[in-house]
Amino acid sequence: MDISLITLLDLVGTFAFAISGALAASYKRLDIFGVLVVAFVTALGGGTLRDLLMGQQPVGWMLNTEYLLIVLFGAVFAYLFRRTLESLRRTLFVFDAMGLAVFTILGMEKALGLGLSPVIAIMMGILSAVFGGVIRDILCNEIPLIFRQEIYATACLAGGILYWGLEKYLPSLYLVPITILFILILRVVAVRYHLHLPTFKGEQESI
Amino acid sequence: MDISLITLLDLVGTFAFAISGALAASYKRLDIFGVLVVAFVTALGGGTLRDLLMGQQPVGWMLNTEYLLIVLFGAVFAYLFRRTLESLRRTLFVFDAMGLAVFTILGMEKALGLGLSPVIAIMMGILSAVFGGVIRDILCNEIPLIFRQEIYATACLAGGILYWGLEKYLPSLYLVPITILFILILRVVAVRYHLHLPTFKGEQESI
Amino acid sequence: MDISLITLLDLVGTFAFAISGALAASYKRLDIFGVLVVAFVTALGGGTLRDLLMGQQPVGWMLNTEYLLIVLFGAVFAYLFRRTLESLRRTLFVFDAMGLAVFTILGMEKALGLGLSPVIAIMMGILSAVFGGVIRDILCNEIPLIFRQEIYATACLAGGILYWGLEKYLPSLYLVPITILFILILRVVAVRYHLHLPTFKGEQESI
Repeated sequence: MDISLITLLDLVGTFAFAISGALAASYKRLDIFGVLVVAFVTALGGGTLRDLLMGQQPVGWMLNTEYLLIVLFGAVFAYLFRRTLESLRRTLFVFDAMGLAVFTILGMEKALGLGLSPVIAIMMGILSAVFGGVIRDILCNEIPLIFRQEIYATACLAGGILYWGLEKYLPSLYLVPITILFILILRVVAVRYHLHLPTFKGEQESI
Repeated sequence: MDISLITLLDLVGTFAFAISGALAASYKRLDIFGVLVVAFVTALGGGTLRDLLMGQQPVGWMLNTEYLLIVLFGAVFAYLFRRTLESLRRTLFVFDAMGLAVFTILGMEKALGLGLSPVIAIMMGILSAVFGGVIRDILCNEIPLIFRQEIYATACLAGGILYWGLEKYLPSLYLVPITILFILILRVVAVRYHLHLPTFKGEQESI
Repeated sequence: MDISLITLLDLVGTFAFAISGALAASYKRLDIFGVLVVAFVTALGGGTLRDLLMGQQPVGWMLNTEYLLIVLFGAVFAYLFRRTLESLRRTLFVFDAMGLAVFTILGMEKALGLGLSPVIAIMMGILSAVFGGVIRDILCNEIPLIFRQEIYATACLAGGILYWGLEKYLPSLYLVPITILFILILRVVAVRYHLHLPTFKGEQESI
């Protein structure tokens, strides 16, 4: 896999998630410190949990300070352009989906590199991609959006399966952009047509 | 200790906790993905935190994919039998209490095997047994039930002390079922007679 | 650094945080077990996350049972003196701020000792100091107070920067009390004059 391409995408994903975290925190009227914390957690939380579960410590961002800088830039960017971002929602959405896609692939690669099974690798990929958002929502005292939103983690799952299935047949140079595009398209279609997974109705559904 | 017996009980406990998580998530009208996540976290969260604290990584379920299958079976089972489970609440309760009991013993054994002190081992046992349910409730945005319910973690504590006290005098073949039965009976009595620990009233108790 | 002084301060901080956790839990009418859990998490949660992120496992309190005793003493103390503590709020506040200060320094020292960069070391210091309170508030189903309170983590940040800046010029014997006093004074001034960081207002600020 082209390391410099992946690194670039990783940074883009971190940046986009930091923006989404900063915006979510500002809607809750947190102070600047709170906004930074939520931006940080949203951008780096998924990778942190992945590294903890796999025993890769100190976790990545503790060894490469540039991640912190990117989160800081993301939060400042969200602050400066908060009025514009409203109308740029589509742009933000693309960045967010790009982050999802890249983190899915990165998480899988890291887990496969440690000799874990493909099923676990796909789980690590999904976890890297979505866990930051889950903590963000817990910190902001909401039922995690991931549980209510249009196909989200499921897009990562589908992308992960595609990536795993084609890994032996395609070089990374083609496979990475194909997987990213696939996840992006799934997200675009899901949001445009409000595709939801079916809910799993229990006895108390009428409440 | 008879490894195959413990393994069997472990699988039963995981299955039961997966069912309880799936039902809790479906009451919150989460989609199928959300239900799977909550079932997974409820069933495996306690053991995961235990392994993280003790530095046992990658954590257990990452190396043995059968745990994931059992969680999947548990969630599917909860879906298929969701109407019947309402009337089977007593059966479910027994399975849940069985899970509590087995996870308490497993957690203790794992900690003692790493040379940790008995007090810490009992804590690891309780944590293995109850932490999954705590995260489940946080994800579903409730005050963790463990803090409001009839004697629950306290049953694990009592079982852990019993297990520790008798470990030198009884072979595992007798001690494991005795401890399990003890915790089961504590739970049955606590729920039937609504036994609560006293609350610890602060100055603002009248609010 | 004088180990015995730091150890003493560490124990004082743990004790103070255990009291604050026990009081917070009792306001939520949790039972005795819940109170102990919240006291424990508040007092030891920050150090636990710090040790997990840095790969220092088993984490500190699993190897030194006296931490558990201190948490227990703190919770019992909070119970016995709950009426008096209301009027002793100022005393409690000083203990809490002392805990913040000491944990900031301890976290930094631990991280620097592992060869991590100063920026990460300051983050580990802040995290050690404030994370316990964050989990406490999540368990009690509140938006973490840290996000709403007068300058809190920011005091740790300022203290951490001071400590780092002066580390080469002053022996620990002077630097530790100076940093602690500095953080204490920041907290006193912040609370007395209701100093807040500015909020970061998003588009939906009028909601």
